[in-house]
This record gives sequence, structure tokens and C-alpha cells, in this order.
Amino acid sequence: MRTTTLAERWKQTRQHTLNIAALVSAEDACVQSMPDASPLKWHLAHTTWFFETFVLEAFDTDFIPFHPQFKVLFNSYYNGVGEKHPRAQRGLLSRPALAEILEYRHATDLRVQHLLTTLKSEKLSERIELGIQHEQQHQELMLTDIKHLLSCNPLYPALLSEHPHAEQADVSDHCISNTPLEWHRFDAHLLEIGHEGSDFCFDNEKPRHRQFVEPFSLTSRLINNGEYLLFIQDGGYQNPSWWLAEGWDWLRQNQIRHPLYWHSDAHWQEFSLNGLQPLDMHESVSHLSYFEAAAYASWAGARLPTEAEWECAAQKDDNLHQLFDSCWQWTSSSYAPYPGFEIPAGAIGEYNGKFMVNQYVLRGSSSFTPPHHSRLTYRNFFPSHARWQRTGIRLARSISDTDD
Amino acid sequence: MRTTTLAERWKQTRQHTLNIAALVSAEDACVQSMPDASPLKWHLAHTTWFFETFVLEAFDTDFIPFHPQFKVLFNSYYNGVGEKHPRAQRGLLSRPALAEILEYRHATDLRVQHLLTTLKSEKLSERIELGIQHEQQHQELMLTDIKHLLSCNPLYPALLSEHPHAEQADVSDHCISNTPLEWHRFDAHLLEIGHEGSDFCFDNEKPRHRQFVEPFSLTSRLINNGEYLLFIQDGGYQNPSWWLAEGWDWLRQNQIRHPLYWHSDAHWQEFSLNGLQPLDMHESVSHLSYFEAAAYASWAGARLPTEAEWECAAQKDDNLHQLFDSCWQWTSSSYAPYPGFEIPAGAIGEYNGKFMVNQYVLRGSSSFTPPHHSRLTYRNFFPSHARWQRTGIRLARSISDTDD
Amino acid sequence: MRTTTLAERWKQTRQHTLNIAALVSAEDACVQSMPDASPLKWHLAHTTWFFETFVLEAFDTDFIPFHPQFKVLFNSYYNGVGEKHPRAQRGLLSRPALAEILEYRHATDLRVQHLLTTLKSEKLSERIELGIQHEQQHQELMLTDIKHLLSCNPLYPALLSEHPHAEQADVSDHCISNTPLEWHRFDAHLLEIGHEGSDFCFDNEKPRHRQFVEPFSLTSRLINNGEYLLFIQDGGYQNPSWWLAEGWDWLRQNQIRHPLYWHSDAHWQEFSLNGLQPLDMHESVSHLSYFEAAAYASWAGARLPTEAEWECAAQKDDNLHQLFDSCWQWTSSSYAPYPGFEIPAGAIGEYNGKFMVNQYVLRGSSSFTPPHHSRLTYRNFFPSHARWQRTGIRLARSISDTDD
Amino acid sequence: MRTTTLAERWKQTRQHTLNIAALVSAEDACVQSMPDASPLKWHLAHTTWFFETFVLEAFDTDFIPFHPQFKVLFNSYYNGVGEKHPRAQRGLLSRPALAEILEYRHATDLRVQHLLTTLKSEKLSERIELGIQHEQQHQELMLTDIKHLLSCNPLYPALLSEHPHAEQADVSDHCISNTPLEWHRFDAHLLEIGHEGSDFCFDNEKPRHRQFVEPFSLTSRLINNGEYLLFIQDGGYQNPSWWLAEGWDWLRQNQIRHPLYWHSDAHWQEFSLNGLQPLDMHESVSHLSYFEAAAYASWAGARLPTEAEWECAAQKDDNLHQLFDSCWQWTSSSYAPYPGFEIPAGAIGEYNGKFMVNQYVLRGSSSFTPPHHSRLTYRNFFPSHARWQRTGIRLARSISDTDD
Repeated sequence: MRTTTLAERWKQTRQHTLNIAALVSAEDACVQSMPDASPLKWHLAHTTWFFETFVLEAFDTDFIPFHPQFKVLFNSYYNGVGEKHPRAQRGLLSRPALAEILEYRHATDLRVQHLLTTLKSEKLSERIELGIQHEQQHQELMLTDIKHLLSCNPLYPALLSEHPHAEQADVSDHCISNTPLEWHRFDAHLLEIGHEGSDFCFDNEKPRHRQFVEPFSLTSRLINNGEYLLFIQDGGYQNPSWWLAEGWDWLRQNQIRHPLYWHSDAHWQEFSLNGLQPLDMHESVSHLSYFEAAAYASWAGARLPTEAEWECAAQKDDNLHQLFDSCWQWTSSSYAPYPGFEIPAGAIGEYNGKFMVNQYVLRGSSSFTPPHHSRLTYRNFFPSHARWQRTGIRLARSISDTDD
Repeated sequence: MRTTTLAERWKQTRQHTLNIAALVSAEDACVQSMPDASPLKWHLAHTTWFFETFVLEAFDTDFIPFHPQFKVLFNSYYNGVGEKHPRAQRGLLSRPALAEILEYRHATDLRVQHLLTTLKSEKLSERIELGIQHEQQHQELMLTDIKHLLSCNPLYPALLSEHPHAEQADVSDHCISNTPLEWHRFDAHLLEIGHEGSDFCFDNEKPRHRQFVEPFSLTSRLINNGEYLLFIQDGGYQNPSWWLAEGWDWLRQNQIRHPLYWHSDAHWQEFSLNGLQPLDMHESVSHLSYFEAAAYASWAGARLPTEAEWECAAQKDDNLHQLFDSCWQWTSSSYAPYPGFEIPAGAIGEYNGKFMVNQYVLRGSSSFTPPHHSRLTYRNFFPSHARWQRTGIRLARSISDTDD
Repeated sequence: MRTTTLAERWKQTRQHTLNIAALVSAEDACVQSMPDASPLKWHLAHTTWFFETFVLEAFDTDFIPFHPQFKVLFNSYYNGVGEKHPRAQRGLLSRPALAEILEYRHATDLRVQHLLTTLKSEKLSERIELGIQHEQQHQELMLTDIKHLLSCNPLYPALLSEHPHAEQADVSDHCISNTPLEWHRFDAHLLEIGHEGSDFCFDNEKPRHRQFVEPFSLTSRLINNGEYLLFIQDGGYQNPSWWLAEGWDWLRQNQIRHPLYWHSDAHWQEFSLNGLQPLDMHESVSHLSYFEAAAYASWAGARLPTEAEWECAAQKDDNLHQLFDSCWQWTSSSYAPYPGFEIPAGAIGEYNGKFMVNQYVLRGSSSFTPPHHSRLTYRNFFPSHARWQRTGIRLARSISDTDD
Repeated sequence: MRTTTLAERWKQTRQHTLNIAALVSAEDACVQSMPDASPLKWHLAHTTWFFETFVLEAFDTDFIPFHPQFKVLFNSYYNGVGEKHPRAQRGLLSRPALAEILEYRHATDLRVQHLLTTLKSEKLSERIELGIQHEQQHQELMLTDIKHLLSCNPLYPALLSEHPHAEQADVSDHCISNTPLEWHRFDAHLLEIGHEGSDFCFDNEKPRHRQFVEPFSLTSRLINNGEYLLFIQDGGYQNPSWWLAEGWDWLRQNQIRHPLYWHSDAHWQEFSLNGLQPLDMHESVSHLSYFEAAAYASWAGARLPTEAEWECAAQKDDNLHQLFDSCWQWTSSSYAPYPGFEIPAGAIGEYNGKFMVNQYVLRGSSSFTPPHHSRLTYRNFFPSHARWQRTGIRLARSISDTDD
């Protein structure tokens, strides 16, 4: 059986984005529900701008931009390639129309296609690969952003008409959430973490280096809605002792009483891409801030794992469930470069050399992550108050040497 | 020659709204550029909701709402008829789609039409009249709101493809702005102001009552762009002595240096519904805040008129130009009920009994005001920092008894 | 019996300020409780700065400033005399110490005294008079500002140890608040309002001019605490229909449920300069925003008077109680220059030519107003949300011609 | 030679606080310059409240509070012991007066003294020790807070009249800042970090545990003003590429152009407790945010050390200068509990079990740290934008295995 070529994977990735876009109307694709989220149309254009700028402009000697102002409109944060349209104003762009953006995609694809068939270059392949990975990241954002937008609509429209669990990875994930929560133990280790080998990874996964972890245990699966509901029913959102000081301030200022998409009238419901549905007690709890994850852990007599613990466990234990494809898992590790990390040169260097303070690492992947994008060494990261991503909880505990 | 019936005027008004909507795409119609402005789609729905609520629900014994949640979604501020969707979130409503709103309009029109042909009622006629006037107000807002939205787009799209002065009422208005600025004098008067007679007026124009005005003079026409530019070139935006204290704070905080839609690169340009155009020195200056109008007046050794002075002059002098159809004219009068005003009962009473602090009265009408909507006693009002309306300047001066 | 000379009045005024200051400690005098209020020490310095700048610097040929930086530190808002220390940071000035400021007062007084005995000048007399009036204004602010500061202290310290009504003007005022509320009627009038004659007035009281008032009636006295409590007990703060839209927003945003200094535990109390005291039902209700005054009026089936109505009544009716010395009375008149007003030249011109938007006129005077400072034509003004001044309510009603 | 007893150390500590307070006036001691800082008077009262609550109330069977409301007024953040006065309003407490607080201190000291001579208890000794350590922390804050307050005063008052380097620990520190900057190398290590033994430490220094550090090097001393000035002169504050994204936003929003207390007119000056002084190029640069420290490191081709690296180096290298008594040293480590940490029970547990997100660890101590308070395992922490503490820079670099 032959393997998929880079060109084929590129084509599939571009098509997958269009498949997501096909779920929504031009109006849906135009609106920005909050500064953190972007309109779907913007994602369509920006992922194309990425190929236009970092592939066509870099490798095509006859390069002419599709539109002189798209360079500014669809740049996200790369200072190295010039000005950019303010993030919070992406939703004001009723023009260019969705149809024009789809045309932009099509025209750019033709030119990339042509380049791929005429130029053989290691550097070009690397850029195409980076463009694929970048676009896959935006595929997940397209789903989280459109979910957030529809959740703001009092009509609670369902994007997907299928069965109520369409948001979940698959039926097996649902079955696992139904199994008893178990603790898996791990001895003290001097282990190596970070990416190894020549396959693609983002720069923040390198260099591979040594870390020592003291003995710890980790839950066999993620916390589910039913378990989280017990925390709420025990007054979890009313008791400051479970919360980080900043978390408690955040909760009170924003009047937070439950996970982002939960609704409580007579009974609990959850908004999903399938619309408003009864809360499924056996799904993984999701759309939690770091504050909520840490508070739950504290209430449960546990804590969040460090990212080294998570990666250690993922390396050593094949029986841990839901490492991938259910929810991103908050770790207690602040996002920082690995020891020995060097920022790559150039605008591309901005892509992953962009370290941030006040952000926490998430590990694994979610049911919104596109196929073939997950990796054991993958480091996702968000601010401690972010909730619109599919973020959940896996618990950890320290084990003292005298524990048995 | 027969006069137009109420039913005909109602039909024409409803059609005129659709004509404006026809200028824009569904994406244009969906976006809200700032909390003060509303998406065009919302205007289309809200003006329909007005007829559905205050005509159909009130007079149609078989009334069933078109959609159970439109009552909340498209209520603007009438507490008396229940909850309302938050104003600043009108732009999040990608659903219902524009097509569905147009259907809502059509279905509602058919029912109103039916009512009009089957029920003869004075009260019904009054409501239809109010609905017409209300919709006309929104026709002006549709133009100001879409203009603001497009002005936020770095592509500066032109909505109207016609000649560069399409925004101006007509060519004659442009000619008048070219005439020398003259001062018309008015003696002291005990005059009556406010609406008189049985024709339609808004409640805030009543009751007609007496006011005394000391001798004053008023400019023959509005200030034009060329005259306003002299103020800028004289350092008007850098000199606090021309400005009200709050105006100066506002200017510095928002880094205001010229009227809202002016742009200065090599030369001055102005954004309009015709796109970015060279600044026409003979158009009335427009899109000014009360602060800017007052500062200009101060710089020019004059002041803004009170609304009594404006109405006095409009009553007595047929040779004043641009009272109507060019720009709304800021007065120095804070918006307040006339002596003897009584708030009407019921939700309709909220419509014009809604007096506000910190708003200033504007008189006349603008080139965005639909035909047959202007009135000598009309009282428009906006906060002192508002600039997205077509607001301009007519100057006044007090005349002491010893002046000649 | 000889009349008091200007020099004597100047001396008495300067001494009266010191008498107020003597009530507080250096620590009390140093703190700023909010940006609107100033530390008492700042008032002591600023009123001295006024004489130093506008008297000594202007008339003393050998002028040397007491301290080179006091010019900046104690300028309030006069752009014409140079830079100024930011208002909100007045409370950061632990240095210069209170003792040093008192020295500054003393040294300045000696020099003014010397000037007064050596130089006879009409212009100098005018400036001294303005300085007296200016200092009297600050005497009232010293009391309102220190009251606000102490109200922020959970210990609720009493500044005055005397009888519980020390804040009230006198016992007779208290008796009047106990009389039945009556309505005094006034016919339509073309009257003259504004200052007349050669006595001192602030510029905003001029020029005297004609205004026409339609028939109206006014309450014989101010609303008292007992009457206002009925409004609260009737759910006044929970019902949006009594409130201006901005007032309702303000109330909800700031969780306002009663006048500024009221406290409710088991029973109602009010904080005053005598500490926390049981609410006296027969005192005039005070420390109300314009929003609260207007809402109460609306609930009571009345409205606030215009300033012309207030001045008309004060001119014509000797039986109106509490025009002065109880509470400042909100009018529905937005603060604006009188017709024919001209801004005086120079820095002094900034003093009263400083008109403001979004402020409402208050008439009369309060129990905190120093003796000999009240005037029938006096125009005080504050923003619609201000409550830390002694502001109360006198109601008005329109009378239609057919009323009897 | 006999050792100092606990009672003697307690007495010395209490006296040292009074010595700091003796430098300022009652007015200085009353003002709060920003929410992060507290009035000196509050520090005096709070450190006394600590002994009153956690020693007298806990151990004195006849306990009666000195003042019933001090419990609320001078609680800082211990939810376990009841309500607390809002932090940002500490500066509003002109009452109780400084004199009364000093009385409170004296009365409490007498009672603690009595307890110490009558009760022998291990638990009491532990509490006294904690009270000493707590008071020492506040001694440093008293100096940083009063420095901040005086820096806000345009008179730039000098608190200390001594020689210009009085803020520096001693002359030797100044000499060291003058030595060449050298890099000390450290091999990879599996080391133990955290407190060991029975001496006092804060809970966050425990438990001692293992961490692995890859090879790294560290600078021999802290960065000095002269070195930091080169960064500024090279456009460091104008170039986003050196800054964390949040740091760049912070810099632009707050218009940051140099360290907190630097001033530039004709030449560079620095505000210190000695007033405004010429910038000393051989002092350690101080009062930097984490953002500035990280940007400087990036510009210098280096990075900040992790706290494990810092502690490793401090354990192994006796030739590192300025570990203590010059400036706190930012590390790249986000503040988090050590593996195996358990929150102690009770209100005292709030003291150090209070972990926070979005804060970074600082190691060492500063010239404001009182004698005998520094410790190799000490973990200080502040938010990334904090600058009013004496915070400086020690650089680190990773060493790859192939480096020589």
C-alpha cells in the first residue's frame, strides 16, 4: 500500500477546510463573536494568505499578490511581514465577500499546485508541511469559533443535524467516559521529553531534553460531566477555598456558575454543534478554564499534572484512555520554552518562537482536532481564563515514598 | 389630483426600506460596527416587529406571532412589551438569515394589508401612521449605520456607484453651500413653538407653548467643508480654549483631529457612500460631534442657536437655506420635555416619552432623511460625542439692544 | 452702625477657612477619597494660591513665589496660568505637610494685608472680592469632601460632637421640614432673570435677560426624608418607569438603593458630620443625584422646576421656605450660558466662562454654604450622577390654562 | 558567646519596624499610592494584628481585642478569620490616627511579652517565629511602598539624608557592580532543591525534592545601570522583537520607556529614598518588570534562569556575587507549588498555601530586605508587570553538550 504524498495531504487539508466552511452560511462566516475568536471567513482567508506569503511569495519568481490589501487584512500577528488589521475588528469585514475569499482560495491553490509540480525543493516541502499543520490548527479554531458564535444566539441553532453526540470523537469515547475512574501509578523517573526524530513538529516541542519527575499517579480517563456536576452540587462555585485567588476574582466578576456551554433551567442542558441538548453525564466535561480545572482538582483532593508528568505517563502507559481526541487536558505548567530552545530566524520564527506569559500548557488533543494532527509531544497553550476551546480535566496526585 | 391614502403611503414606506436594503449584501446586512449602530438586517426586522406588535397583535383577533422569539430579538427598548436582546449583541445574530427576515417582512405586510382592507378604525390608522414615521426614522439610521460599517473597512467600499455627490440631497444644495455666508437678524419675540394642528407629530413636539427669545442672528446656510478646514488649519483641534472641558477630554482620549469621515494623506479626502472621495469644499461639513460644532462656533466668534431660536427663524424667514435635507443642525438646547408635557400611557408612550439627559437637540433634517419626514417642529437628539449621524453647523449670535 | 470693609471681610473669610480646618487632623486633611473630592489640605493651599497668583503676582511689583512648585501643585484648572498637577493625584501629596501649608497661608496673608493697606485700586478690590467668593465656594467643598472621606471609613467617625442636627442650618429649618407640603401657584410671566446691579456676582449669572414661563406651581418646602422613604418603600429603586434611561443604567451599575449616606440594617441611619445617626424623618432629604431627584418627582406625579421657574418663584413669593441654607435644589435646566453671555478674557475668564455639557443647574444654597454667600441668582451646577454635595428636591408642576 | 533568644529577636524585629516608621510623618504614613501598595500606617497595624490574632487570640485565655473593628480593618487576605477591609481603600483610613496605631502596637507588645514570659509552648514559639518572619516581609514592603509614594510627588522628597548610595546594601555591593560580567558554568545535575532541616522556612519552600537541570551558565553578578542603558540606547523599548507579546502590549499601553524610577531630561536621573540623583552606572539596575528583565535578556542573547538553575548555582558556587542583598532576581519559573506540596490547614495555611497564577518567582533578596531574612531556598513572587519592588536581572544561558 503506497503512502500518501505531501501534495496529496496538502490537497486533502485544503479540502477539509472547505468541508467545514460548507456547514455555514455567508452570514455565519462573517461574524466575530469576541476578540479571541475570528470569523470563519477570516480563517479561510488567513490560511490561504499563509500559503500565498510563505510559499508563493517566497518561491514563485513571478509572484503577484491576488489582492494588494489582503496582505494586511489577513496577516494574524507576523510583525516580520508588515502591518496587520486589528484582531478585534476582523468581524467588521463584510467585504471581501465569502464568495471572493473562496475565489482567493481557489486561485492560490492553483498556483501552489503548479509550484508543487514544477519545483522540487526541500525548503518548499518544509513550508508546505508547515502550511498544512497551520491550516489544521485553524480547522480546530473554525469549529470552536463557530460554536461560540452560535452559542451567543438565543435561537441556539444546531450546526450539525446528526445524532446528539456528533461533537464527540466517536461512540467508543463515550463508552470510556462511562468506565470507573482509576489511578495509574508512575515511579520517579529521569526521562526525556520533547520531540525526537525527523517527522514534523512545532518548534516549541524541541529540543528533547531531560526532566526528573517524582512519583505520581494519574487518572485513567478524563473527568466526565456527571463527576463535575457533583462539584457544582457541593457548592464548588460558592466556596473560595477551592479556587486560586485570581480564579475566584474571575468567577465573581463574570458570575461564572458552571462550564461555558451548560444551561440550567428545570434540568441541565449543554449547547453543542447539535444545538441545545440534555447534559450527557458520561461525556467528558469540557469548555473549562484553567481556574475551573484547578478548583475541581483541589476539591477532588488532587491536582493537575505537570506537562512532564503527562508526557511521562503517555510514554509509559498504553492503558491510559482519552489521551487524544476527547478534550485538551490542562496541565499546571506555565507555557515556557524548553531548556536549550532557540528562536528560529525570520517571520516563520514568529510562528512558534512566540512564547507567552500567563498561559498554561494543554496536552493531548480534542474531538475538534482534525485527523493526523495529534502528537504525544504536542504543546497547546491558552490563558487561564480561556473556555471556548474543548478543554477538560485529567487529575494527578503526588505519591510520597512511603505511600504504598 | 387625488391625495395619497394612508395605505398607499404605508406601502411606499415599506418598499423604500427594501430599496435601501437592496443596495447591500447579506454579509453587509449582518454586521454591527459599534453598539450605537445596528445591523441593517436588524432594522429590517425591527420595523416589521413594530407593525407586528403594535398593529397586528393589538388589532388582529386571530394574531399568532410569526416566530415566538422574534418578540425578544427585535424589540429595541420597549420595557412595556417584555424582554429584549442586548443592543450591543445585535451583530451576533447570523441567524435568522436575511432571507428569513425578508420573508418575515413579506408575511407581516400581507397581514397588515389584509387588516387595512377589512378594518376601519381611527386607532388603527394612528398606529399605521406611527409605524410609517417610525420606519422612516430607521431608514435614515440604515444609511448612517451602513456608512459607518463600510468606513471601518480598509477597502473603503463604495455603496453607491453614481456621481460623487450622491450623498448630498441634490445639486441645488451643493450650489447653496457655495454662496457667501450671511447673517439674518431676528428681533426679540414672544413666540409659540411646538407642533400645532392635527397632522402627525411625535409627542416630544408637544405641547405648543410660549417662549421668549432675545434678539439674535443666524447664518443663512450651514458651514461648509472649506470653512471648517480653516478652523483645522488654524490649529482648532490643538487649542483647548475653543473647546468645552468635556469636549477637550473627549478629543484627547480619542485622538480626534478632524470630522469623522475625513482622511488626510497628501490631500484631504472624505469617505461617503460613494467611497473615498476628494474633500468637496462646497459641501456642508457633516458628521461632527456637538463638541466640534460648539468649538467651531466659539472659534468663529459665534455660538450654536437654541432650539427656540432655530424654530423662531424657521417660522419667520423664508430665505434661510438648508433648514432641511442637508445636515441636522446642533442646537445648544439640552433635550428635555416641553413645559406641560405629559408622558403617554402604555408601551407606545415609551416611544417619545423617553427623555434623556446629556443629549442635545438637533433641528432640521439631512440628505439621509427620507422624503416627507421633515418638519419645522421636529426634534432630533443625540449625545454630545455622537458623530455617525449627518450632523452639521448653523451659527448664531446674540444681538445686544445697542447693536446696529 | 458702620459696614464691614472689604479688608475685614477678606480677613474673616480667611479665618473661617482655618476654623473648618481646625476640626480635622493632618491625616484627615491629607487624604483624597475620590477624584471628584480634594484633600482639605489642597483646599487650604489652592485658595491661598488663588490670592498669590491673581492678587500678589498681578499687583505686587516685588513678587516672588512662596515656593517655585506650588504654582503647579495648587492650580486647579486654569490653563491660562500654566501646568497643573493631575486632579486625581491630589491625595498623593503627603508633602508639603499641613504645617507648611498653614505657613504658606500665613505668609501670603501678610503680603495681601500689606498690599491692601498700601495700594488703593478698584481692580485690586475686585480681585480680593473674587478671591473671597472663590474661597467661600471652597469652604462648602471642604465640608462636603471631608464628609465623604469620613463616610468611607468603617469606623464612621463624627467630626462634630455637638447635637445630632449640627449639619442642619438651624432648628427653624428642621421645624419647616415638619410642615405640610403645599403647592404655590405662579401665573405665566415674561420675567427678567439673572443678576442686576453692581454687587458681586459670578459671570454665569449675567446678563440679566427676559424669559417667558408658562403657569406652574412649586412646593412650599423641600422634600423631607420621611417623604423620600415612602418612595423607597414603594419600590422606587426597583421600577425603571420612574427613571431616566441613563439614571436606570447608573442605578443598576452602581447598585444604588437609597441616598448616598443612608444605611439600612435593622432601622434606617444616616451618616453625617455627627457620625452615624438615626434617620431623621423631618430633615430635608439630601445627597441625591439628579437621577434620583427626577425619579422621585416622576413618582410623585410632578417634575423638577426649570431654573427660570425657580428664580421667578423666588422673586415673587416670600412664603417659599428653604430657598436657602437647607439643600441645593436640582433644576431640570442643563447648565448653559445665558443669551448674550460673553466669556471674559484672561485666566480669570476661565473661572466662570467654563461652561460644561452634561451638568444640571442647582439653585438656592445649603447648610454647608458659608454665611453671606447665597444669592437669588446664584447658579450652581453638577453632573447628573453627583451625590456628595448637599443636594435635595423641590417639586414643580405645569398648570394648564384650564386648570383651576 | 550566647545566641539571641526568640524573645530578643521578636523584640528587635518589632523595634526595627518602628525605626522605619520613624523616618516618615503621620501624613506620609497615611497615603496609599496605588492598590498594590499599602500605607505605612497599615503595615504597622497589620503586623500587630497578626500577633494579636494568631498569638494573643490563640494562646491568651483572657483575650479581649484592643478594638473591635481592627479585626476587619487590618486583616489582609485571610478569609479564614473573617471579613476584611478592601485592599484598594486602605488609604482612606485617616482614622485611626498614627498615634493610635502606635498605641495599639505598644499595648499588643506588652501582652505578647507577658505571654512569652509566662507560657512555654512549642506551638507559641512557632507562631512567634512566623510573626517575626511575616513582619520582616512587611519591613521590606514599607520601604518599597513609601518609595513609590514619594516618587509620585513632583517635589521628589528625599527620605534619607545620607550619602547618595544609602539605598544600596553597602559599599562592597557597589564595587561588585563595577567588576566585569563573567559567565559561570554548571554541569547537568540531578539536584535536590527546597528547604531542608528544622530551621524556619515558609511552606512554599517545601518539600525538598529532586529536579534535573541541563548544563547552563549564569552571570557572576547582576546587570548594572550602565549595561541596561545600552539596551535603551539600542532602541530596546522600540523593538517588539525583544519582548514577550504581553510585554509589548504592556509597554505600549503604559508608555514605558525605562525602569520605573528613571528620569531623563538633559541627563539620566534615578529617584531613590535619597531623592532624585544622577543615575549611577555601577549600581545594579532595579525596579524592572518581568517583561523588561526578559526583554533585556533576549537582547543580550541570553535568558532568565529557572529557579532550579538559580538554586543549583547558589548551592554549588561560592563565587557568585550579589545572590543576596542587592536586588531580587527574576526567574523564568512561574510560581507553583513544589511536587508533593500539601496546603496546611487553618487560616495560617492561607499564608503560604496561597499559590497564584500569572506570577513569576524571584530569588535572592534585596538591599531593602531586613537582616537575617534571606535564605537560599527563599521564593519570592510577583506578577509580570510589577516594578515597585527592588527587582533586577541575573542572566542565564543553556549550554549544549557540544559547547566547549
